[in-house]
Amino acid sequence: MSQHIKLLEKGTITSAKGFQAGATFAGMKSFAEDKYDLGIVYSTRPCTCAGTFSTNEVRSFSIRITEDNVRKGEVRAVIANSGIANAVVGDQGRKDALEMARLAAQQLGVQPDQVGVLSTGLIGAELPMALIRSALPKVKVSEAGGTQFARCMMTTDTAPKEVAVAYQHGGRTVTIGGVAKGSGMIHPNMATMLCVVATDAAVEAGFLRQALKSSVDRSFNMISVDGDTSTNDTVLLLANGAAGGQPVAAGSPEAALFQEALDMVCTFLAKAIVRDGEGASKIFEVRIEGARNEAEARMAARTITNSNLVRTAVHGNDPNWGRVIAALGRSGAKVEESKLSLYINGVCIMEGGLPIPFFKDAVIMQMRQPEVSFRVSLGLGDGSATAWGCNLSEAYVTFNSAYTT
Amino acid sequence: MSQHIKLLEKGTITSAKGFQAGATFAGMKSFAEDKYDLGIVYSTRPCTCAGTFSTNEVRSFSIRITEDNVRKGEVRAVIANSGIANAVVGDQGRKDALEMARLAAQQLGVQPDQVGVLSTGLIGAELPMALIRSALPKVKVSEAGGTQFARCMMTTDTAPKEVAVAYQHGGRTVTIGGVAKGSGMIHPNMATMLCVVATDAAVEAGFLRQALKSSVDRSFNMISVDGDTSTNDTVLLLANGAAGGQPVAAGSPEAALFQEALDMVCTFLAKAIVRDGEGASKIFEVRIEGARNEAEARMAARTITNSNLVRTAVHGNDPNWGRVIAALGRSGAKVEESKLSLYINGVCIMEGGLPIPFFKDAVIMQMRQPEVSFRVSLGLGDGSATAWGCNLSEAYVTFNSAYTT
Repeated sequence: MSQHIKLLEKGTITSAKGFQAGATFAGMKSFAEDKYDLGIVYSTRPCTCAGTFSTNEVRSFSIRITEDNVRKGEVRAVIANSGIANAVVGDQGRKDALEMARLAAQQLGVQPDQVGVLSTGLIGAELPMALIRSALPKVKVSEAGGTQFARCMMTTDTAPKEVAVAYQHGGRTVTIGGVAKGSGMIHPNMATMLCVVATDAAVEAGFLRQALKSSVDRSFNMISVDGDTSTNDTVLLLANGAAGGQPVAAGSPEAALFQEALDMVCTFLAKAIVRDGEGASKIFEVRIEGARNEAEARMAARTITNSNLVRTAVHGNDPNWGRVIAALGRSGAKVEESKLSLYINGVCIMEGGLPIPFFKDAVIMQMRQPEVSFRVSLGLGDGSATAWGCNLSEAYVTFNSAYTT
Repeated sequence: MSQHIKLLEKGTITSAKGFQAGATFAGMKSFAEDKYDLGIVYSTRPCTCAGTFSTNEVRSFSIRITEDNVRKGEVRAVIANSGIANAVVGDQGRKDALEMARLAAQQLGVQPDQVGVLSTGLIGAELPMALIRSALPKVKVSEAGGTQFARCMMTTDTAPKEVAVAYQHGGRTVTIGGVAKGSGMIHPNMATMLCVVATDAAVEAGFLRQALKSSVDRSFNMISVDGDTSTNDTVLLLANGAAGGQPVAAGSPEAALFQEALDMVCTFLAKAIVRDGEGASKIFEVRIEGARNEAEARMAARTITNSNLVRTAVHGNDPNWGRVIAALGRSGAKVEESKLSLYINGVCIMEGGLPIPFFKDAVIMQMRQPEVSFRVSLGLGDGSATAWGCNLSEAYVTFNSAYTT
């Protein structure tokens, strides 16, 4: 972590000045012990905004409305629900997403196109709008409501995911806070990873979009729980300028600092999602170095984190490096066997394409750590990338074999 | 099945005239109850030959030598071993693969470049050539040896995979027989699906290559056990003309019949591999219709068979169709939600993009069958494809978590 950027204790989305949040239980989910399923985030000031959205060809209307509103550029509030994904329900999904935005806007005194709508849960069921209409007035937003909001997005998550960091610049304190949910890329019929990040920095809209894309590419786009993307994946970023100062623009002195802080928030939340993956008990990191270019490094890192055989090896603390090399080989990245090196938690397993005799019990002990790291050097160029995955366990299979039945 | 093509009882690779096979135990594997691990297939006559090979960037030298020899065009014998993959062992792998071809050639009285070499097993270990040299003379080839050869390729397979079909043409009986192994695309550190197909048809070499590619694209390339391709995947096809007649050429009257028979052999063996997938107890078929083109249909079918969430739903007899649609949506195939239909074992679950109320218990009963079928109609064009996958079970995870440790 940069020494200029501080991780805040009990940080959450409302750690950023001028943001309020709250949540209630509307009755859409019965499976979580935590009983919030409908919530709001609100900025007391106008915002610049940016978003990244699922590339799935089948998308919830909630995501489509949100993308439209982000494009219009004035989103300053978010309404979120869990339990129902509002996906694959025909045109009713569009009407319901629009009504959710309208209801939140009325309550907050803003315009409907200033509201983002996030839904996560069962695919193919309509939103229970009567429940939402009657419950929404119970949502009271405040600066203390960040964790409530984090909880209202949870489905099979075992814990809320929230973080905030702060930095000093030009005599001001700038804070970035965020919340996320998602213990699978797509859940047992319950879609989705969702994330909302809020900052009190003033940020020029073009740079905000660019900074978010860059952070997401290095964080949320580099994690995998089960290889399935969802119909509802969304990351939103709102910047309200409550910290004062000139808007951060590309190339400005503050831009690099803002980017680094945003990277920290996104990476923290992304890793929290993997760590809480369904049935997962440990996280592993795959670091690729020396690829021909960054695109190939990313492909290689993601393919290895997605491999069921690598993931079961991690589950079994098994230094089964042949699986890592075989996954690498099918990733699409150029590989020259004679230039390959592989390290597991720092122990060299293979060098110059040849296995190195290693003391297996020592590597097994290393792999018993809650975090395992594989570092692969391809020796072909400057491309590098890091991805994170989680172990594939019997519990994952059991959990996902019997969700709707 | 075409009425012109007959499935033979107890058919195997030596059902084709002029082919002999045999195997022995050299001591390379200790984990299988079946104790063959070194074998030979031999044609008493010269052959035309064709092959398809793993696209993995990391490949065994066995595969590279075999590909070279197939390119030279006179392969008429195959030596195979299981237990050791001869992959990721540096240049020693090349020397050993060449020596295996040389040893088999000497024993059979043919040239080394007339021999294909197939290896499957642990990655990163050298072949025990001393064992192979001393055991190979014990391999006696005969027309009764097909099943022995099928067994010598087995690693975690629970049963040998073999089949033969025959058709009549121009007063001759033409037989195509084949054997295969592979209960994962890549095994717990043991690579590979391998397949050898033999026919007594005379087949022009160009058409033989084209016919094999076409069959493999519809069979082996459409199955998935765990999404991992291996360093050693190989399909070989030898045609020795012992049935007599003019060589089958593209566009000839016999070509379509030969292709259909070859498709049957390859599809039978491909499905046998999936059925015997590690930890698998049932197979499922994904049929895509109405895609914009065949390439998109293939992508869609393969993505759905590879989805861990679909595979765990099949395991749990769970008609969790949202997972099928979500996997479809990320496959890269164009989807228009309002044109989608989905059937599970013939029961319509979704039509025109809207879920249809179905009697869940009835669908669950359907899914308890040993074969489950998903049929998805995209309503966009003429592209269609079929792929096969197997359930993802707790047993798969347990098995793959503790292989080398």
